[in-house]
Amino acid sequence: MRIDGARLLSRLRELGEVGRDEQGRLTRHAASDADRAGRDLFVGWVKAAGLDVEVDRIGNVFAILRSGTPNPAAPVMMGSHIDTVTDAGILDGCYGVLAGLSVIEAIRANGGEPTAPIVLAAFTNEEGVRYAPDMMGSLVYVGGMTAEEALASPGVDGTVLGDELARIGYAGSSGHSFPKPRAYVELHIEQGPILEMEGIDIGAVENLQGISWLRVTIEGTANHAGTTPMSMRRDAGQAAARAVTFIADRMRQADAPTVATVGCMEFEPNEINVIPGRASFTVDLRDPDAERLAAEERVLPEYLDRLAENEDLTVSVERLARSEPVAFDPGIVELVEAAARRRGRTVRRMTSGAGHDAQMVARGCPAAMVFVPSRGGVSHNPAEHTDKDSLIEGANVLLEVVLILARSKIPA
Amino acid sequence: MRIDGARLLSRLRELGEVGRDEQGRLTRHAASDADRAGRDLFVGWVKAAGLDVEVDRIGNVFAILRSGTPNPAAPVMMGSHIDTVTDAGILDGCYGVLAGLSVIEAIRANGGEPTAPIVLAAFTNEEGVRYAPDMMGSLVYVGGMTAEEALASPGVDGTVLGDELARIGYAGSSGHSFPKPRAYVELHIEQGPILEMEGIDIGAVENLQGISWLRVTIEGTANHAGTTPMSMRRDAGQAAARAVTFIADRMRQADAPTVATVGCMEFEPNEINVIPGRASFTVDLRDPDAERLAAEERVLPEYLDRLAENEDLTVSVERLARSEPVAFDPGIVELVEAAARRRGRTVRRMTSGAGHDAQMVARGCPAAMVFVPSRGGVSHNPAEHTDKDSLIEGANVLLEVVLILARSKIPA
Repeated sequence: MRIDGARLLSRLRELGEVGRDEQGRLTRHAASDADRAGRDLFVGWVKAAGLDVEVDRIGNVFAILRSGTPNPAAPVMMGSHIDTVTDAGILDGCYGVLAGLSVIEAIRANGGEPTAPIVLAAFTNEEGVRYAPDMMGSLVYVGGMTAEEALASPGVDGTVLGDELARIGYAGSSGHSFPKPRAYVELHIEQGPILEMEGIDIGAVENLQGISWLRVTIEGTANHAGTTPMSMRRDAGQAAARAVTFIADRMRQADAPTVATVGCMEFEPNEINVIPGRASFTVDLRDPDAERLAAEERVLPEYLDRLAENEDLTVSVERLARSEPVAFDPGIVELVEAAARRRGRTVRRMTSGAGHDAQMVARGCPAAMVFVPSRGGVSHNPAEHTDKDSLIEGANVLLEVVLILARSKIPA
Repeated sequence: MRIDGARLLSRLRELGEVGRDEQGRLTRHAASDADRAGRDLFVGWVKAAGLDVEVDRIGNVFAILRSGTPNPAAPVMMGSHIDTVTDAGILDGCYGVLAGLSVIEAIRANGGEPTAPIVLAAFTNEEGVRYAPDMMGSLVYVGGMTAEEALASPGVDGTVLGDELARIGYAGSSGHSFPKPRAYVELHIEQGPILEMEGIDIGAVENLQGISWLRVTIEGTANHAGTTPMSMRRDAGQAAARAVTFIADRMRQADAPTVATVGCMEFEPNEINVIPGRASFTVDLRDPDAERLAAEERVLPEYLDRLAENEDLTVSVERLARSEPVAFDPGIVELVEAAARRRGRTVRRMTSGAGHDAQMVARGCPAAMVFVPSRGGVSHNPAEHTDKDSLIEGANVLLEVVLILARSKIPA
């Protein structure tokens, strides 16, 4: 059994044309007119495939292949999202959703009546560009946030999510008819460089990094760059540079998958002939291991305390955001590995560096992810690209995994 | 012989009220209405003191005490400026000009007819806030820039300096009537913390730092903070931090008066979850020794070349501005020291970290400066402060130095 690769690629291209602006940039923010057009296109394909469609209160769209069995097992779910960032590529999210549709179509085309229903979810607002938080639809689906709270989210454009969902016709009035899934599998492009660099076909994603976002602010004294001797300076910018160097050296020396990034840096007053009186920077710290993430979160403030004392500065650390690491279900990860190998593909276990709906769904049922290579590791960008063969092969691996899960007795 | 301290302080306060805005901030940019009002006030005092007034083409105002001698020696000049930065204190520049007037008044009050004329200069546009370059009036006075070129300078507000000088009535039609001075002495607040920190009354300024302004730009690759392993990053921000740390460590270890400041820092795209693809920062490097300044200017690019190679980055260094160090006249510096000691004051030789009209005048005749302490080293700020006694004492030291210079046979 194989998915229809040509149809998958053609649908990816077609959906990728929905939401282009005059400059040709693709943008489908959650609950926008472009999102409505994308949803309508997807729902049309789902209905044409003979599947049931349900929309819950937060606008998640579920395509359901019912089981013919009198007492069906709990469903197997696939999913991802079709909203995009600004000036996006055509694969992020859409690939997992449309590959899921290909999987269901392949099962139907094969005449199979699965013993468990198969559900495909297109979750609302995964990107979180217009409304916070990101991964909102899957978070609400697993009960991590109430629909009321989510629907009240204010948009960066002054709108309210609930109003916009109603306006575009995707505010469902109730929940969904199917019980808690026995398993969830999400197929996604890697959005990182590892599979391509190592020449590996398939990633069996066993966990997802926890993320800690910190803002560090250092206060010294702004002073004249010419008349203040080096020994009498309280230079906040120089101290910030020391801290960034400390972080970089620590990461370089560590034998761990921890990553730390200082993405934002601001000096004040930011004038060429004034010693910076204030410097602030952000730290994006990620690790798939909860204990190691927490340990790293303690190291930086300790260093900064010493720095503040040595340099006679004031340092404060503010936590901007935090998510715990997610360990995916080892059984599903093994199924992904086995499916890839059976199909003659190279496969490696890996960590997801980005956030995905799977991390939310994993709160409610066993879950894992399948990655295919991203050229240059590029994503959230029109240059996002995965070879056609890889896209088709990823969907076939997903199909194999779903078929086994649908027959498996692994309890939900 | 002593200057009239009460009158000096009262004039400083009175001139310091000219150019206040509704919030009480003092701003007298060159050739503005506020500058005219300040100039008018000063010229009124000069005329009341019975001195001749001359205005040259660039608007420098010269107050002249003529010599009664048939064949007078070359004049002794004092000077500074009365234009200010935005939201200024009342001392920077004005102190040197008004103390100079006090000196001439004290000589006149004493019935002295100097063997050399004594000239007091209020130079146009020392601050350079509205028109570039700074120290413009003294630069034109010594022939380092033509009056035509200076008068054509466009203002940050769209004006032209020549038009504005004519509008406020300070565009002189010719040069000045006196020959090249035999010596120039400028009294100024230190604008740095050294005299206050060391508890010393008077600074005998023997040189002025050369200044080199550089902009360093580092290009790497912007990438995802979560999915890009540390070993595969080309992080421009991290490299910028290493360079700043290198500069700070080098300055800390050096046994030299060199100072280096990284005042401006920009990361791009400056987003919390994106590895900086570009970072740029400025370096303000100052040293009173020309060779050492040039050597330091070579060290940073060499370091950056190694950094670029090690980290697989592209680095470029652009020179934004440069001025050579200025060595003041050793004879005048000794006169300043001797005058201070004779008056029972503590004195130290020192380097000026800031730019002053004296550095321009020094191109044409022997020159030096006298510093008095600045509280907290603060300047270009309403908090700028020097104690009354220090202000009066500085003017008395200036008086002693001018009296000796007027009698001295040191050739001009």
